[in-house]
Amino acid sequence: MKVKVGKKILSANEQYAEQNRRFFAERRILCLNMISSPGSGKTSILTRTINELKGKVKIGVIEGDIQTDYDAQRIKATGADVVQINTEGACHLSAAQVSGALEKLPVSKLEVIFIENVGNLVCPSAFELGESGKTAVLSVAEGDDKPAKYPALFAKSKVLLINKIDLLSLGAAIDFDIEKVKSEVHRLNKKIEIFSVSAKTGEGYDGWCHWLAEQAKKTNATNCK
Amino acid sequence: MKVKVGKKILSANEQYAEQNRRFFAERRILCLNMISSPGSGKTSILTRTINELKGKVKIGVIEGDIQTDYDAQRIKATGADVVQINTEGACHLSAAQVSGALEKLPVSKLEVIFIENVGNLVCPSAFELGESGKTAVLSVAEGDDKPAKYPALFAKSKVLLINKIDLLSLGAAIDFDIEKVKSEVHRLNKKIEIFSVSAKTGEGYDGWCHWLAEQAKKTNATNCK
Repeated sequence: MKVKVGKKILSANEQYAEQNRRFFAERRILCLNMISSPGSGKTSILTRTINELKGKVKIGVIEGDIQTDYDAQRIKATGADVVQINTEGACHLSAAQVSGALEKLPVSKLEVIFIENVGNLVCPSAFELGESGKTAVLSVAEGDDKPAKYPALFAKSKVLLINKIDLLSLGAAIDFDIEKVKSEVHRLNKKIEIFSVSAKTGEGYDGWCHWLAEQAKKTNATNCK
Repeated sequence: MKVKVGKKILSANEQYAEQNRRFFAERRILCLNMISSPGSGKTSILTRTINELKGKVKIGVIEGDIQTDYDAQRIKATGADVVQINTEGACHLSAAQVSGALEKLPVSKLEVIFIENVGNLVCPSAFELGESGKTAVLSVAEGDDKPAKYPALFAKSKVLLINKIDLLSLGAAIDFDIEKVKSEVHRLNKKIEIFSVSAKTGEGYDGWCHWLAEQAKKTNATNCK
């Protein structure tokens, strides 16, 4: 038996990820895979982002949760298109699940698709979904030691949103050194963009939304593949 | 070939968990497997618990982290015995890792061993370590929808610590309804004990430390098997 070498054998997940990657490239859609601990504010970030960019950037969302459709309901309330995936216990989304969800989204009218992954700072970063890039979220309430303790996501992400910065104005209640986090994350990943925001007050959203709109425009102008 | 039925075939992890369970039972040690999202305050809860119960309950700690020994250093500073496990990427501790760590702890002088699992609200709850019970931690900064969205841990835990309640005094900055969480958690798990605490200010520690000391005493008096 002859074995052909030189061709990488892809896992089932990688095959679906590659298929999704082609799907986004052909349609010139920017797809961001959003990953963080539970409760860092992924859904709140998305609802405000959708509202701030209304009429400027067409955003759709794939919501990944172990159970409930709470997050999808919150996205739906903004008027954006959303598909909920329930993993029923699984700790991360798979590329096959995303592929199935894409069939239910009106992709022809979308410029950006956010995939909100299951709340988990560890496992989702190991499973490619075919995204254009990963978006990490870290809330200041989680502590500034997290990039050092959970480096994989920060090393792989295209952009990091440091969220809940409104809590920093409360003084000593929250110990979080933004500069320490930036320096640690840049040590792991020289290319990453970092924005400090508050999904609650809107602080820092100008920079983040401008960057996102530019990325969407770039993807739309030049096929991202 | 005859296959003997009626005997459950245990996975490798279950075999080690069973071995650890016997280890704790024979020595009448209370072992609590502490699980939560990253940044909910597990290590801060432990350092204050150790300090508050100094001279009353002998506590040792097994620290699970993907990388760094930051948490073990913080435990060591209290004077308690601690062993660090680095999982190098894995999203949960295994019973075999705990078994190895137990060989390095001076177990004969301990009454309580806390296992601080990798920060992850999902995966660690699916892997038994041989513990007497699971201790869930949820910080008020994570939002009060977490028990509904990540039910497995709350359904399986012996005790839940709602942490960072000092942030609730900051008013509208944190939206977290403690009664909603208690009612949701009790719906999942009728037997669970719930304590609201602040590892920072010590609020609520009387109830938690009293409960812990009683559990340790009970385990010591009557073999927990």
